[in-house]
Amino acid sequence: MPKPIFVLNGPNLNLLGTREPHIYGAETLGDIEARCAAKARSLGHEVVFRQSNKEGELVDWLNEAATGACAVVINPAAYGHTSIALHDAIKAMATPVVECHLSNPMAREAFRHMSMVSLAAKGVVSGFGAKGYELAIEAAVHLASA
Amino acid sequence: MPKPIFVLNGPNLNLLGTREPHIYGAETLGDIEARCAAKARSLGHEVVFRQSNKEGELVDWLNEAATGACAVVINPAAYGHTSIALHDAIKAMATPVVECHLSNPMAREAFRHMSMVSLAAKGVVSGFGAKGYELAIEAAVHLASA
Amino acid sequence: MPKPIFVLNGPNLNLLGTREPHIYGAETLGDIEARCAAKARSLGHEVVFRQSNKEGELVDWLNEAATGACAVVINPAAYGHTSIALHDAIKAMATPVVECHLSNPMAREAFRHMSMVSLAAKGVVSGFGAKGYELAIEAAVHLASA
Amino acid sequence: MPKPIFVLNGPNLNLLGTREPHIYGAETLGDIEARCAAKARSLGHEVVFRQSNKEGELVDWLNEAATGACAVVINPAAYGHTSIALHDAIKAMATPVVECHLSNPMAREAFRHMSMVSLAAKGVVSGFGAKGYELAIEAAVHLASA
Amino acid sequence: MPKPIFVLNGPNLNLLGTREPHIYGAETLGDIEARCAAKARSLGHEVVFRQSNKEGELVDWLNEAATGACAVVINPAAYGHTSIALHDAIKAMATPVVECHLSNPMAREAFRHMSMVSLAAKGVVSGFGAKGYELAIEAAVHLASA
Amino acid sequence: MPKPIFVLNGPNLNLLGTREPHIYGAETLGDIEARCAAKARSLGHEVVFRQSNKEGELVDWLNEAATGACAVVINPAAYGHTSIALHDAIKAMATPVVECHLSNPMAREAFRHMSMVSLAAKGVVSGFGAKGYELAIEAAVHLASA
Amino acid sequence: MPKPIFVLNGPNLNLLGTREPHIYGAETLGDIEARCAAKARSLGHEVVFRQSNKEGELVDWLNEAATGACAVVINPAAYGHTSIALHDAIKAMATPVVECHLSNPMAREAFRHMSMVSLAAKGVVSGFGAKGYELAIEAAVHLASA
Amino acid sequence: MPKPIFVLNGPNLNLLGTREPHIYGAETLGDIEARCAAKARSLGHEVVFRQSNKEGELVDWLNEAATGACAVVINPAAYGHTSIALHDAIKAMATPVVECHLSNPMAREAFRHMSMVSLAAKGVVSGFGAKGYELAIEAAVHLASA
Amino acid sequence: MPKPIFVLNGPNLNLLGTREPHIYGAETLGDIEARCAAKARSLGHEVVFRQSNKEGELVDWLNEAATGACAVVINPAAYGHTSIALHDAIKAMATPVVECHLSNPMAREAFRHMSMVSLAAKGVVSGFGAKGYELAIEAAVHLASA
Amino acid sequence: MPKPIFVLNGPNLNLLGTREPHIYGAETLGDIEARCAAKARSLGHEVVFRQSNKEGELVDWLNEAATGACAVVINPAAYGHTSIALHDAIKAMATPVVECHLSNPMAREAFRHMSMVSLAAKGVVSGFGAKGYELAIEAAVHLASA
Amino acid sequence: MPKPIFVLNGPNLNLLGTREPHIYGAETLGDIEARCAAKARSLGHEVVFRQSNKEGELVDWLNEAATGACAVVINPAAYGHTSIALHDAIKAMATPVVECHLSNPMAREAFRHMSMVSLAAKGVVSGFGAKGYELAIEAAVHLASA
Amino acid sequence: MPKPIFVLNGPNLNLLGTREPHIYGAETLGDIEARCAAKARSLGHEVVFRQSNKEGELVDWLNEAATGACAVVINPAAYGHTSIALHDAIKAMATPVVECHLSNPMAREAFRHMSMVSLAAKGVVSGFGAKGYELAIEAAVHLASA
Repeated sequence: MPKPIFVLNGPNLNLLGTREPHIYGAETLGDIEARCAAKARSLGHEVVFRQSNKEGELVDWLNEAATGACAVVINPAAYGHTSIALHDAIKAMATPVVECHLSNPMAREAFRHMSMVSLAAKGVVSGFGAKGYELAIEAAVHLASA
Repeated sequence: MPKPIFVLNGPNLNLLGTREPHIYGAETLGDIEARCAAKARSLGHEVVFRQSNKEGELVDWLNEAATGACAVVINPAAYGHTSIALHDAIKAMATPVVECHLSNPMAREAFRHMSMVSLAAKGVVSGFGAKGYELAIEAAVHLASA
Repeated sequence: MPKPIFVLNGPNLNLLGTREPHIYGAETLGDIEARCAAKARSLGHEVVFRQSNKEGELVDWLNEAATGACAVVINPAAYGHTSIALHDAIKAMATPVVECHLSNPMAREAFRHMSMVSLAAKGVVSGFGAKGYELAIEAAVHLASA
Repeated sequence: MPKPIFVLNGPNLNLLGTREPHIYGAETLGDIEARCAAKARSLGHEVVFRQSNKEGELVDWLNEAATGACAVVINPAAYGHTSIALHDAIKAMATPVVECHLSNPMAREAFRHMSMVSLAAKGVVSGFGAKGYELAIEAAVHLASA
Repeated sequence: MPKPIFVLNGPNLNLLGTREPHIYGAETLGDIEARCAAKARSLGHEVVFRQSNKEGELVDWLNEAATGACAVVINPAAYGHTSIALHDAIKAMATPVVECHLSNPMAREAFRHMSMVSLAAKGVVSGFGAKGYELAIEAAVHLASA
Repeated sequence: MPKPIFVLNGPNLNLLGTREPHIYGAETLGDIEARCAAKARSLGHEVVFRQSNKEGELVDWLNEAATGACAVVINPAAYGHTSIALHDAIKAMATPVVECHLSNPMAREAFRHMSMVSLAAKGVVSGFGAKGYELAIEAAVHLASA
Repeated sequence: MPKPIFVLNGPNLNLLGTREPHIYGAETLGDIEARCAAKARSLGHEVVFRQSNKEGELVDWLNEAATGACAVVINPAAYGHTSIALHDAIKAMATPVVECHLSNPMAREAFRHMSMVSLAAKGVVSGFGAKGYELAIEAAVHLASA
Repeated sequence: MPKPIFVLNGPNLNLLGTREPHIYGAETLGDIEARCAAKARSLGHEVVFRQSNKEGELVDWLNEAATGACAVVINPAAYGHTSIALHDAIKAMATPVVECHLSNPMAREAFRHMSMVSLAAKGVVSGFGAKGYELAIEAAVHLASA
Repeated sequence: MPKPIFVLNGPNLNLLGTREPHIYGAETLGDIEARCAAKARSLGHEVVFRQSNKEGELVDWLNEAATGACAVVINPAAYGHTSIALHDAIKAMATPVVECHLSNPMAREAFRHMSMVSLAAKGVVSGFGAKGYELAIEAAVHLASA
Repeated sequence: MPKPIFVLNGPNLNLLGTREPHIYGAETLGDIEARCAAKARSLGHEVVFRQSNKEGELVDWLNEAATGACAVVINPAAYGHTSIALHDAIKAMATPVVECHLSNPMAREAFRHMSMVSLAAKGVVSGFGAKGYELAIEAAVHLASA
Repeated sequence: MPKPIFVLNGPNLNLLGTREPHIYGAETLGDIEARCAAKARSLGHEVVFRQSNKEGELVDWLNEAATGACAVVINPAAYGHTSIALHDAIKAMATPVVECHLSNPMAREAFRHMSMVSLAAKGVVSGFGAKGYELAIEAAVHLASA
Repeated sequence: MPKPIFVLNGPNLNLLGTREPHIYGAETLGDIEARCAAKARSLGHEVVFRQSNKEGELVDWLNEAATGACAVVINPAAYGHTSIALHDAIKAMATPVVECHLSNPMAREAFRHMSMVSLAAKGVVSGFGAKGYELAIEAAVHLASA
């Protein structure tokens, strides 16, 4: 059995389903976890699915994933735009990391156009809502087996 | 009895009274809590008063306030200038949020001129020292009953 | 009897009540004058309430307030963002000056994010509509008696 | 009889005919007033034609035009590039406003490339000298009857 | 018989009438061609009316107009903001060129505020919808006979 | 039978397989076309697959797709970073558009960080090489049936 | 008898002697007028000495000086940094204009480093306090007789 | 016989001899072709000499040169400053590319200071008019035999 | 016995020895702790050595050091570039703070050139790998006894 | 007898009289030295007059002037815009320093708008040609006796 | 016999052959001098070949070349990017100046993209290693006889 | 006996002890030389200690150190912020170079935040006054023996 895929979620994503649904959709984070688990299982993988409002905890989990995961899907939310710590954590690991956003940050405010995480991640999936997590899982599995 | 007003305080505000008193004044955070409680009570409200050095904990409390408070007064201190996570947490809640600063950030270093929190908050009170918390409480009560 | 508080209003504020009410509210400048007078009186002060579309006239009034007022509340409107003359007039006086805005400029267009007046004023109250004038009066009285 | 069209002229335009004629042409402001009156009359309108070197007076006139004119043609000259007060005055009125420049500001110094008035006006006519006022009158009449 | 006026239209203008009608209006490019032809004929001119999605083809046509047209009206659409090639083509010809936009680019996204074409053209008409083409024709005839 | 999915490829992508394979991979554009066709077919769709070095031709094809396609996958390559014409073409159509890049532009030179296409597209898939086209097809089908 | 030299003073200079004397010195504007008159008389000239807080009034006076003065010394104070209207008024006159500042703006805040007036004036004298007016008078007489 | 040298010319260069001769000189593009052919022949090479106003056609020709030429001299004219597509085409080929400009872009407007082509080309010859093409041919032959 | 020296380490430094050893060297954080302890002991001091991925925890420790340490050596890693909270914590304490980096941030990506911590710290030692910690300890002891 | 006034001249000023006389005038540096000597003598001072093309030599002379001169007039020419070394040398001395330019740098290219020397000097005289040296001498004497 | 061609070399070029040969090539400055002399002689000219690490000495030599040389080839190396003094020296002479670089500065770090020398020189040859000096000599002879 | 360590000092450091002692300390450069010599000797090395106000002379000495020193400590003072020549000289040598500053440039004016020398040096010691030279010597010895 391969190592699991870590699916890490950043600040305020715990509010999904209630938070600005015209931007983020009506599904809850639990719904998305179910989607991810199903998709991963269909590809022969397990997921470890977590959420935190704390930048440092996300760094901890990436450090853990360096040895404990075969790939990472991360929706860093607000921290993705400014966090050099997340950037460095990704640079410090060989495990492939896929960045995922529900909305398309480039179509929103200018302060969401920069992504410190994108500068370090292997690739990005953004703008497809909850469906994007499935695509990101698929990309992660693809990279893990490359 | 209405829901309480959350009064949230960011990094280093625990040092008030000792930290650069020519900028921040001689009152301690305990003194300010007492002021806030008195002012709120005079307007028929209770306050929940907290301080943290952790950005993520402030996000947690804003998420909690979305359902548990009738209004929020937040002095985000250093995090206010750069935190998209706080910005998003405020955008994600209907509860009105009032930003409050002891000093006037615009009269200080350039890196304090931008406020990610101001971009999302209903209004701002800054530059009046501990007195400003009372004004912010008054504004918060006003918004909560609007 | 203390010197009066000057409440100075900048360009286009004469239009209040008709001008973009979704931004500036439905109260007229006369309504706000009444609020200010009542609030000041309750704190033992009189107000001198004026409006002008001319930057230079606002400078004249600040020069006058240097000796004729115990405190100033100024809503510089459009001139606040660019006027070095207002900035210098405030710097040149010992009388405390409180900046006040109906809306929250930081939540609007980028050209409203800078405030030359904020760089010189003691403090700022913004985003609370007509209610903000009352808070500014209270802050001004507080500063005048400090 | 419809309300008149206001034709408002900003600083230094009183010097037309003598001021840098290679840029601004040889016609005086009086000549241009005659052109505007003739053109407007041919379209069934009267013009109110004014000039001021004072930003605040131009704001006053725009405020007046909000109820007293069917349309405005404004050559804000130097103030157009920086005046948020003119911008706000235009935003505050339903009457259509046409910006007009004798020369083409984009073909001149960089500090003439930005126009705070253009950000608020319905449209712009620039670079056609005195003839441009006639085109602007025509555009204004068109907008007034739209 | 004078040389014709070239009316050149840039990318996506072929979609007029269906493309974002709240911005660009409900008239098709055929309707505008008819307007231009009528207006020009009333002033004793013919128009050559063309549209292309290709920057290079617009340059070709400007090169052709250098000898084959008495004046040019160009709505460069998206290419106007960035095309140095169009700028150079205009600089390289003595024939007067009038820039025309249906909407007012300054009132839209920041990336539409710069115009490389405006830096080279004689003048600009923008913001008056299809009516603006008529004004631009009139300006072009005026310049051609100057 | 639904309308086909357009898969549009920008400049220099005809060189795939020989061009800087450490960045763009060893598969040719023909290989990628085959992948896309297979993936689309598995989801009940046909693809129309094209490449051009000409910005204007890509605009033409997007205009065509507005009525002739159920969704578009576009790898705009170099034009994606600067083309307002592509941006406008996407804004002018209701058909959903997915942007796709073989490499992760954010991990490359700064002039590849901006994307005018991303500002208009529904979503983005980047950094997964040829595999990314399959994910983009899947996203496009998802959007087309939403 | 030659035409007089206009000595024009901008906003807040009426406060000299009381305003921030560590920056602007202890002499009043009346003292400076006396200095200027004495210096000019020693060189065979009269001065017309004025002060205004209004940008537009300074423009009026420059327009007047175009025919009524042999030279101008202007201390534009705050308006010098941003006023295109003053810039244009100077450009529009043949009479030589000397810019004068009590303090050295380059040694102060960054927003005082730019001078729209310097871009148009013949020369500048700054940083020598009241003495600088005498030097500026001398320079003005020199230019007037060149 | 070695492969030919491609000499590629960008937009508006077809106008040489008539276009702003004080900048670009009096020789036509035909004259320059003759110079290039003579120079190349003297060094044992043939030239393929082309001009296009279309960015995409220049990209096509560079793609062709990747296998069909021993070296390229390109005067990208206006497209050189902004074209990432030309940049990528040069990066994608092993054939050496020499950039050539008639005038010295650094001595002209700021928008001509950047060159996306220079970022990718082997070297640059600029400012020597038609003579520069001969030097560029010589450099190209030198690089082709290195 | 003097108060200890706090040696505080920021995000991802727990990975030392495995993380990009060509940049950060082969020693682990444990090795560095041993070096620091030895060096400090040789100078008559103890060290308290900690690491955290959490910005807020580093702020907590600096607050603690304000009274509990005689000096601080801090390698803020990623947080040093952007953290105003760390900056404020240092400004709020009299205890001297020495910033230390294993690599030389100025020789790396541009986003590592700014240091909010350097703006507040007494001094900096960077670029000497693990050896730099010893130098920083020596500097800290020097400052503590100054 | 007081210490002399140093008059220091920067690069290329040795060419005066031949170098771009429409900008710098027809007088040679020798002529200017004579003017300075005469003016200084009339005020009871001697001048030491030097020129160098070397930034470091100008620094040497400023260091020398710190003890050997009662005041300095410096025309730093090109070095004034960028030299932090000259800036530091002026900051390091109590002797007053007057900056002097023949032309008005603000009316020239943008790279002449900044002056590192102005940031440190007491005051500036610019734009009056050779006459300006006399005014600068007068200012220097004034400052030396203050 | 014509005046010689000056070939001037800036800082660190004395190290050629040993300094970063992958960038600057393996030839020494002596080798390049020999190349230049041979090339110039073949065109009927002599060269004066010099190197200095001192900006001021390069300015001295340019001043000397104004009358003593028929043309100048200058490789200003590091000083070319920032030296206004070199810029001014070139502007002050009628003798044509050719800028030459061994490597292509545009293909290197951003701080090498600007060239103050290019803003003043007649033309530029860069990127062709030692061969480029020969081309620059040829260009210089061409300009000297124009 | 190993090669000596060069300790090179830039402009105005000859003034140490008298120049702004609140920033630079009370020790003279001679005191610092003694410190350096003692420290180096204790580590088995000799120092060659020099100071110059001339950028080019510092470049000369770095060139000399490339073969004549085992390591370099350089306090480039003002030149460090802008000198590409010093940068290139360091890049051109294998001998390790340590940058040293008495004060912490990051805690001073913005124009001292950039360091062209830091971009090339191995490491930096700043902010510890004269003591910092000893630490830099220790770092240099460490690097020389690495």
